[in-house]
Amino acid sequence: MTAASTSENTAPPSEVLAAIDMGSNSFHMVVARLVHGEIRTLEKMGEKVQLGAGLDEANNLTPEAQERGLACLRRFAQRLNGMPPSAVQIVGTNALRVARNAHIFMDQAEEVLGYPVEIIAGREEARLIYLGVSHTLSDDCGRRLVIDIGGGSTEFIIGQRFEPEVLESLHMGCVSFRNRYFPDGKITRRQMDKAVTHAEQELLNIRRHFRSVGWQSAVGSSGSIKSISSVLASLKISDGTITRDGMLELRKRLVDMGRIEKLGDLGVRSDRQSIFPAGFAILMAAFQSLGIEEMEFADGALREGLLYDIAGRIQHEDVRERTITALQERYHVDQAHGAAVEETAVAAWEQVADTWGVRTASDEEALRWACRLHEIGLTISHSQYHKHGAYLLRYSDLPGFSQQFQRDLATLVRGHRRKFSPAIFDGVDDPDDKTRLRYLCVLVRLAVLIQHPRNLEPPPRLILSAEANKLTVEFDEGWLDDRPLTLADLENERDYLARQNFELMIPVAERA
Amino acid sequence: MTAASTSENTAPPSEVLAAIDMGSNSFHMVVARLVHGEIRTLEKMGEKVQLGAGLDEANNLTPEAQERGLACLRRFAQRLNGMPPSAVQIVGTNALRVARNAHIFMDQAEEVLGYPVEIIAGREEARLIYLGVSHTLSDDCGRRLVIDIGGGSTEFIIGQRFEPEVLESLHMGCVSFRNRYFPDGKITRRQMDKAVTHAEQELLNIRRHFRSVGWQSAVGSSGSIKSISSVLASLKISDGTITRDGMLELRKRLVDMGRIEKLGDLGVRSDRQSIFPAGFAILMAAFQSLGIEEMEFADGALREGLLYDIAGRIQHEDVRERTITALQERYHVDQAHGAAVEETAVAAWEQVADTWGVRTASDEEALRWACRLHEIGLTISHSQYHKHGAYLLRYSDLPGFSQQFQRDLATLVRGHRRKFSPAIFDGVDDPDDKTRLRYLCVLVRLAVLIQHPRNLEPPPRLILSAEANKLTVEFDEGWLDDRPLTLADLENERDYLARQNFELMIPVAERA
Repeated sequence: MTAASTSENTAPPSEVLAAIDMGSNSFHMVVARLVHGEIRTLEKMGEKVQLGAGLDEANNLTPEAQERGLACLRRFAQRLNGMPPSAVQIVGTNALRVARNAHIFMDQAEEVLGYPVEIIAGREEARLIYLGVSHTLSDDCGRRLVIDIGGGSTEFIIGQRFEPEVLESLHMGCVSFRNRYFPDGKITRRQMDKAVTHAEQELLNIRRHFRSVGWQSAVGSSGSIKSISSVLASLKISDGTITRDGMLELRKRLVDMGRIEKLGDLGVRSDRQSIFPAGFAILMAAFQSLGIEEMEFADGALREGLLYDIAGRIQHEDVRERTITALQERYHVDQAHGAAVEETAVAAWEQVADTWGVRTASDEEALRWACRLHEIGLTISHSQYHKHGAYLLRYSDLPGFSQQFQRDLATLVRGHRRKFSPAIFDGVDDPDDKTRLRYLCVLVRLAVLIQHPRNLEPPPRLILSAEANKLTVEFDEGWLDDRPLTLADLENERDYLARQNFELMIPVAERA
Repeated sequence: MTAASTSENTAPPSEVLAAIDMGSNSFHMVVARLVHGEIRTLEKMGEKVQLGAGLDEANNLTPEAQERGLACLRRFAQRLNGMPPSAVQIVGTNALRVARNAHIFMDQAEEVLGYPVEIIAGREEARLIYLGVSHTLSDDCGRRLVIDIGGGSTEFIIGQRFEPEVLESLHMGCVSFRNRYFPDGKITRRQMDKAVTHAEQELLNIRRHFRSVGWQSAVGSSGSIKSISSVLASLKISDGTITRDGMLELRKRLVDMGRIEKLGDLGVRSDRQSIFPAGFAILMAAFQSLGIEEMEFADGALREGLLYDIAGRIQHEDVRERTITALQERYHVDQAHGAAVEETAVAAWEQVADTWGVRTASDEEALRWACRLHEIGLTISHSQYHKHGAYLLRYSDLPGFSQQFQRDLATLVRGHRRKFSPAIFDGVDDPDDKTRLRYLCVLVRLAVLIQHPRNLEPPPRLILSAEANKLTVEFDEGWLDDRPLTLADLENERDYLARQNFELMIPVAERA
């Protein structure tokens, strides 16, 4: 899906950027202008779509919830019209992470929006939230703890300046907790206690690590935390600073109120009332588990983080390059060999990209990075290492990458050697994606094959001609004559590809 | 299957040891006495079972091949009678690694033998071969290359003294190559060239690394290499040393002979004639790819390696402990927390092991090591880390471990948190194994739950009483009162286990 875009990705970088965050509770869009590396917001839109509340018991999004989401995206789409894909990021979070039928909604969303749509993992969400929040704060306060309570997940980050150091995403949010503990609008002591205890149990997994790293200031950044801050101010419990004593006082008052409607008198908008006690319980648990004394609300969020992420890529500070290098180092990849395969693959790609329709920037990125990482699975075992590499790329937390992009990399690594079997493309539902990845996979395989002798000699000059499901490979006169093993590899490859109705022509072999 | 043994594993270590190697070409047994850390062979038996040749097109062992194997094992079984399980190792290699119905054969083999039977991975096979060969050689020759050509796989090792440094197992062997290139007993130039080229292609994957590490002497250690050495001597091409020139000369002579029967005149036993050209082609390719000048035959092999491995365990030099520690380090596991969970689990195990029938040494080892490694998957991602940990334990090359033991560890790590779902035991076919792992898994879960607060306080005194599918947990008076999160965790756990018909009783919770 990443390459399914309406216009080419090669347009000059625009200075107008846009981000859409399809959250479990609300969808948000922000449009901004990039001025000397800073983001100036032009427009913000938000709608309470409640996608997370539209998950049925089997974790499928109901047709109604999908329609609510698509209706909202249709409104957003008008504003995006004509922006280059490189200036737009659209991501889904927890509700789409857990929905079994997410791909159906995603396909429709891409059609409505005309831009690629991605699902990001919890830690990537945490990274982007920190990026958004840290840009709204002054620089001078040492380590900071950032908490963002979403509809389906809550993110916890410790960082300094713009660099996150610890990233966690826990599977609890104000929509899921509302449904479980406050479904009927009543706030009882018993239910509040249960909700807080549940959140504390989740926090046990990260408490010790977060406390040992420590922080100088705590910041909260979601609608839930904003509401708590303003209720504390309305009740004159504090000036809006969220303190531990203030939280304990508010806990009593909420139970005394007994019903969510009374929150209206304290300025809580009606569409936020039902999730208020749930968000409160999660924050209460965080205060107790992590030993937070006080917290300020800050305005940045996931969507601002997305904008800074786009801005970074435009300014060639792509966090994804850092991630790829870190993976090569962590898993002791032979980097010289990876680079040789990459060079060979890109040389081939340039000759066939147009014919095969794989010319976008993300096609090239997927090809390059898959080549650099194709041997990553060797750390686990030589046997079936292409599968181990695919597993690592599919499930690791990779800063800067969407889940679909990780799936693309995993697919290319899975398919880089042995049989060209249909199983390589398991999990790729969209037929266009499958076609695209099949072509890229043929290029990775060809490059790995040519570099199989691992002697790091410069790649041979390849003369390629491509048609649909067909590739003719020619080398300079005589090059193959001294390389019987490469010829044997090419002949094997011809057989492998032929079984999947892909024709590889090697004129020199036909002559021989 | 690892614990399915006829007698208790707690008997004092015997000084008589036995190893059986169920290879793809032959089954071998060796019985030996351990004298001051050295192995003195008492008896050797071998039969050409040709299990690998009995794989059908779908990679199932035919009933005939299974019967050949079991008949051989019945003969071996008599000799094992009465030895303690800790003194016996029985392993299967490539044919059983690839057979889809291996578990059926393994179950029958255990019944016939009355001892646990294991399948080992290719690199583990390489490690054991090196262990066997290195004990037959003098110490003073620096790095050595060891090659062992089996029926279905060929192992390549570089090591110094008794320590292997590089271990590889390639998926090519003299039985599989015979079937592919010399099925009819003819030796033609064309087929020989094809076989050598195929082997060279496989070797490309390891060539550069092996050449860069280098060696001072090369040793070969299989029946195939022994035959080549003696044919070279019969032909007076050399004194039995295998040289590159000798190999090239023999290649010509083989093609001139044209048929395998003529090998009989050169002293090749009739049951080895059909695989001789295939083994020759693999060794020829190794000489060319790796640039070997000359090689000596050495007598040690997998089965001797197994004996030295047993001897190491008896003398408390268990290579598996080193492997576990290396894993903890490679994946940055919190070792103090792992140790706390292990201590808690073992304290619980001691109270219930007899009732649940999980008292063997390998039950205790699996429990301890699973506790130490339960968080290994966190390196990949926090989300679903129990599944990532299981993947790493199932597929990594772990020196000293059989594939079944790795499966047991993976199962316990997979099941250490979240739902106690039947999917945890996917891949555990034997009902007794499943029962055993289910009980051990309950213990791991309980220990992880009690240590959930990660405060490293000494584990509480547990009073457990067990029945079939039932466990009652009591704590010292008042201990749980201050620990509402642990109580909530226990109540969750009761619900999780109840869904799989396992009753967890927490008397204090019933009172509360």
